[in-house]
This record gives sequence, structure tokens and C-alpha cells, in this order.
Amino acid sequence: MEPVRVAGVGLTHFGRTPARTGRELFAEAADRAFADANVDRSAVEELAVGNFMGVDAERQGHQGPILADAAGVQCPATRYESACASAGVAVRQAVRAIRAGDADVVLAGGTERMTNLDTPAVTDALAIAADELFEVRAGVTFPGAYALMAQAYFDAFGGDRTDLAHIASKNHENALVNEYAQYQREISVAEALDAPMVASPLGLFDACPITDGASALVLVSESYVEEYDLDAPVTITGSGQGGDRAALAERTHIAQTPAATTAATAAYEDAGVGPEDVDVAEVHDCFTIAEVLAIESLGFYEPGEGIGAARRGETTADGQRPINLSGGLKAKGHPVGATGGSQIAEMTRLLRGDHPNSDHVPEATVGVTHNAGGTVASAVVHVLEVDR
Amino acid sequence: MEPVRVAGVGLTHFGRTPARTGRELFAEAADRAFADANVDRSAVEELAVGNFMGVDAERQGHQGPILADAAGVQCPATRYESACASAGVAVRQAVRAIRAGDADVVLAGGTERMTNLDTPAVTDALAIAADELFEVRAGVTFPGAYALMAQAYFDAFGGDRTDLAHIASKNHENALVNEYAQYQREISVAEALDAPMVASPLGLFDACPITDGASALVLVSESYVEEYDLDAPVTITGSGQGGDRAALAERTHIAQTPAATTAATAAYEDAGVGPEDVDVAEVHDCFTIAEVLAIESLGFYEPGEGIGAARRGETTADGQRPINLSGGLKAKGHPVGATGGSQIAEMTRLLRGDHPNSDHVPEATVGVTHNAGGTVASAVVHVLEVDR
Repeated sequence: MEPVRVAGVGLTHFGRTPARTGRELFAEAADRAFADANVDRSAVEELAVGNFMGVDAERQGHQGPILADAAGVQCPATRYESACASAGVAVRQAVRAIRAGDADVVLAGGTERMTNLDTPAVTDALAIAADELFEVRAGVTFPGAYALMAQAYFDAFGGDRTDLAHIASKNHENALVNEYAQYQREISVAEALDAPMVASPLGLFDACPITDGASALVLVSESYVEEYDLDAPVTITGSGQGGDRAALAERTHIAQTPAATTAATAAYEDAGVGPEDVDVAEVHDCFTIAEVLAIESLGFYEPGEGIGAARRGETTADGQRPINLSGGLKAKGHPVGATGGSQIAEMTRLLRGDHPNSDHVPEATVGVTHNAGGTVASAVVHVLEVDR
Repeated sequence: MEPVRVAGVGLTHFGRTPARTGRELFAEAADRAFADANVDRSAVEELAVGNFMGVDAERQGHQGPILADAAGVQCPATRYESACASAGVAVRQAVRAIRAGDADVVLAGGTERMTNLDTPAVTDALAIAADELFEVRAGVTFPGAYALMAQAYFDAFGGDRTDLAHIASKNHENALVNEYAQYQREISVAEALDAPMVASPLGLFDACPITDGASALVLVSESYVEEYDLDAPVTITGSGQGGDRAALAERTHIAQTPAATTAATAAYEDAGVGPEDVDVAEVHDCFTIAEVLAIESLGFYEPGEGIGAARRGETTADGQRPINLSGGLKAKGHPVGATGGSQIAEMTRLLRGDHPNSDHVPEATVGVTHNAGGTVASAVVHVLEVDR
């Protein structure tokens, strides 16, 4: 199979731009990705894009051709919707297209416009990622669902709100220098603990914000890199996906995320690496507890042992394995359908050495991205490696 | 690459079942596909499903895990949304997964619940497949858009409403014996011409109905067929996808569908066949004019020459190349996100010889399916071949 290189990445600033359409955001991200890649958009043979709530936010489905037009590419274009893992799934299928020899150049990524809706409307729109019949009708919202998971975790393994507050504080610290981050401001552990309670045990600062933004990646075959002598040192060497039952009530236990474990296992096997080889990771911290579950599913910690990682300093910028140097969903922001692509973009910058936080991981050669949908009913993991 | 075999197919009856959920419909189709395949559902390694309007009809997104649960499979599950080509795209990615060696058994298909909404609400829901900024706000609906295409065709090439009425009459005739069809009743050319005008030149009988239904396919690798000694004589030998700008106003001409031509060219090349080798086809006749555009894009007719095919008897059941022996979207029905899978299921039955219309094509060895999204801004073509 053909290896898949990241030729270029592009991001919009993540934040509140309610008047900008999803297609406008994606056009900007794509422009930046083409410039970064030094690849002309006419070379693109396929478009794979994530979008989650365009129907509710903009009354726009069928975003494949809409976003192809916005990005100025003329090719088969497919929209992927796997809730918050939409762009992760899009990237995975883009990788498959190149590996299968169906394309040499694929534009992948995603876009989401959210802040043009008010908070109740966004809450309704996000709820379509849960099981309508067995969760949403019963009043479950995502803060509530992750609060159940957090409480189940505390009951099964221990840990407390202070452990979670350290994750929030760490990710805000990481975002300080990230020019694309929604929140470039510090929050202390005490501030996180003092924030209003949303759904016990999760407070306001345990949750990611509502965000507009887009991500774009120019992915190319290795033979294309050679033919055009591109500077593309980062390779996607592993891709894995996992699935679980949508409703929390149907699961065996809710203090673990087996879909992500499946995805990670597959991605590691695909890349021929193990968790011990990973230097740095971007994980799906839609809520602080989700980061804990992620680093356990990625094999960095045994189940029940990830909770104290940030508090102990192991996952901070200068810890043994930094997690979410971008700021994560928590501080960088979470434009749902764009996030999986943003993680790959941030990891690429980290491994290439041109991320403002690259100096914390100067020797890193292996990075992992972890993107999850719903209460991790969908999960996609990618392994990225850099030639140094 | 690994060849992809159709081990089994399953359909629900297409029609009006407003109280049945999309997941319930898919569960029934999947049950039938597993029984037809003689494959246990525990063998499924991936699920690829099309769904278009679940957000509007059921407030349900993230249908990958929802439909995996309904079908009783535990695996990575992805929802594809490319408007009316959603299931076609899902099948295409399922084919890729097997060819890439990522899976030996994939469940593909789609589901749509539509009739629980009233007609104005369905019209709004369908409109998300068009360009919201540049078409929908201007009042364009799909009957209107296809009427523009029909009028442009008549202006460019000639043809009239009687030519279209022959297509409607033919497809209703074909559906008479199809136990899954929404309308098992004849309509004459005179009745079609007398039906109320919807958007000139298209009348009520030029349009497909609003339909609930689901489709499921058990796709397997050739090595899996050999290992388990399955009876799976039909192979998907070609797959192609094309894209175009979403808004009609952005196109060079609207009396042709270049996205489908691209998809067909790619699928033929993939299969190593040409249009002259095709014995039978299922095409996306959401409106009668769409069948004309489809058979031209598939290379059966030059542009401008497909309009009289049904009237001349060339595409009727006993014509030289029968089109839509299932009854097509026009008479079999069009549960949007299920249609691309239904076409593959019907073609499989036709080629295996167990379709009620198989006796019209007893020697057929090559079949083609053509699935389109929006005003053919997305198109997917598959080539199926049978061992005889």
C-alpha cells in the first residue's frame, strides 16, 4: 500500500464568528492548507469532509459539493457525519483512498458553524449525536452523559474534581501560545473548581466551549511527494476506528471507552508501534473526564490510573508525554465537524517543529490523535510519524 | 486488490410506514441480508450506512452506531450523507474497505423514514440537498430544479412530455411484479400526461414518491467466499464517483450530468468494461428526465439521444437494454438514504436470476447501478458482474 503524507495543513482561528458560513470557514482553512503544502488545488482528486450540525445551523446538507466549491476543487466530494468524530472519519477514508491507489491528492478536514445558534438550540443540535429514543427523550444532554461517566469513574477507580481541574488548567496553559485557540488565557485549578456546576461532578470549566471553525489537510501519496519534490516530513502511518452502542445504558461499563481502545489497537498495529513509542498526543477532551478515558484507551495508562496524570505533571507540556499541547478541545475550542482534522493539523505542526509548543517536544517522532463521537460510540485514532 | 462479492441482499417493502423508525426498517433489511447471505452477523467487521434526513425526520444523527445496534453488529460504523446518493457512497466505501484488505465482511446499505413528516416538512427536509444560499432561498425546490433541467434539455435537444410519460409508464409496468415496490400498479402514457402539473414540464407522474424503506447488503472478500464456501455469484467489479457544483446556476449547462459521466467512466475503467458490455441498469429516476440524463451519462446514448429510448421501446423490459426493471425510484419508491443500496440489491437479484423480472434478462452478465445526489452534484456508479 501507498504511504500517506501530510503535505500541508490549514486552520481558521477557532472562536465565535457567528456571521461566517461553514463554507466560508472551510475555504479559509483550505487556502491555508494549499499554501502550506505548496500544492495547487487543481491537483485534488477527492474531497473528504466532516460536518455535524449543518442541517440545524444552516439548513445545509450535502456538504460534499458545497465545500468542494468553497475550496475551489472539482472532484468527487463526500461528507462524513459521525458526530464529534466526523472529521476523524473523513481523514480515515482519505487515507484509505490514497492507500488503495484511487487518488494521489486528497483534501480532507471539516467545518462547523455553531455560534449563530443560541445555547438551547446548540444543545438540541448536539443532542442528535445521542440516542434519541433511549437517551434524549429521557432528558440526557452531553454534559449530563459525561457527568455520569465521570461519576462512574470516580466510583470505580477513585479520583476527584481536583484531578479534573488540573486537566482544564493544563490545557488552557497549553493554549496560551496557540494562535488558533479560542481561549488564550490561563485558568488556575482553584478557578476551575470554583466555576459554576453544570452537571455534577462537572463544572463549567470541565467542558469545552461552543466554537466556529474549520480544518483542512492536503494528504498525498509518497510517490506524489517524490514526483513533485515536496517538503512533507510527516506520514500518517496508522489509522483505526472503533464503535460502540450509542446509548450509555446499553454498555457494560461507562467508566471506560472500549471503542477508542479498539481504534487505538488497530492504529498501533497498522503503524507497527505501541503506546510506549508515542511521544505526544492530541485527544478528544470535550470534557475533562474524556481526556482521562482517552489516555487510558490509548494505552498510556491502565484503566483507573489516568485520572491523576495531569495533577502529577505527567501529561503537562514538560511532562513525560504531553497531552493536548494545542490546548485541546477544552481551550482551543471544538467546532464539532472540524475537530478531527484540527487534531491532525496540530500534530503535524508539533512534529514538524513549527508549532508554538514544539519546543516542549523537540525530539518527538511519534504522535497520536484521538477523535471521539457521542459518548465515544465512535472513535478514530491516527498515528503520525516524522522523518528527523 | 481483493475482489468484492455480494453475499446477500435485504430490502424492506418500500412504501408508507410512518410509525416505523429508521432503525427498525434497517434492522429488517439487515435480517434479510444475513439470511440471504448465510453469513452470521458476528462476522461483520464494518458498517457503512446511508441516511439523509434523520435529523429532520427523527432528530437522530450519528446513525452509524444507532444502526449497528439495530442490525446487531458490533464494529466501526459510519454514516454517509451525500443527499440521495448517500447509500451509493456508503457502498463505494464498503467496497474500498474490502479491496484495501481492511475487512472481509462489511454490512452496507441505508435507511430513511420520511412519511412521518407532512409534505411541506418533507419538502423542507429534501431542500438541504440543494444550495441553501444560492438556490433554496430563491425558492428552488427539487421538482422545480429538475423541471429547469428538463426544459433546458428540450430546448437543447428536443423531446417532449410524451417522451417522459413513456418512462413513467415503463417503470410502473416493471414494478408490477416487484414485491418490494411502493406502487404495483400500471399507469398509461395518457394517465401520466393527464396528471396534475407540478413544475412545468414535469407533472405528478414524472416524480418519484415519498417513501419509507431500508436496504442492506452483505459484502465480502473473495477469499471469504472461498473459505466459507458461500454461494455469491455476483461481484462488484467497478466503482466510480463524480462531483459537480451544487447550484445549477454555477454549471456550464444543465441538460447534462457530467458528475455521473465521470462516475461511469471511472467505474467502467475499474471494471474493464464499456457501456456496450452492459446488459441491464438501475438508474436514479427521481424524476423521469433524470432517467434520460442517466442513460446518456452511462454512455448508452449520446447527449440528446436518450430522450426517446423508452418511447422507442429500447429501455423497456424486453428492449435491447432494460432500464429500471425494479420499477426505479419512480414506481418502486425512493427512501432517500436507502436507494443506492436498493439498486445494488435489485441488480444482484436480476443477475442471480431470482428477481421476478429476471426472465426479461436471462443472459445478462453485466449490470450497472447509477445513484445521484441533489441535481447530480454527487453521483456514484457501480458495475456488477455475475458468474454464469
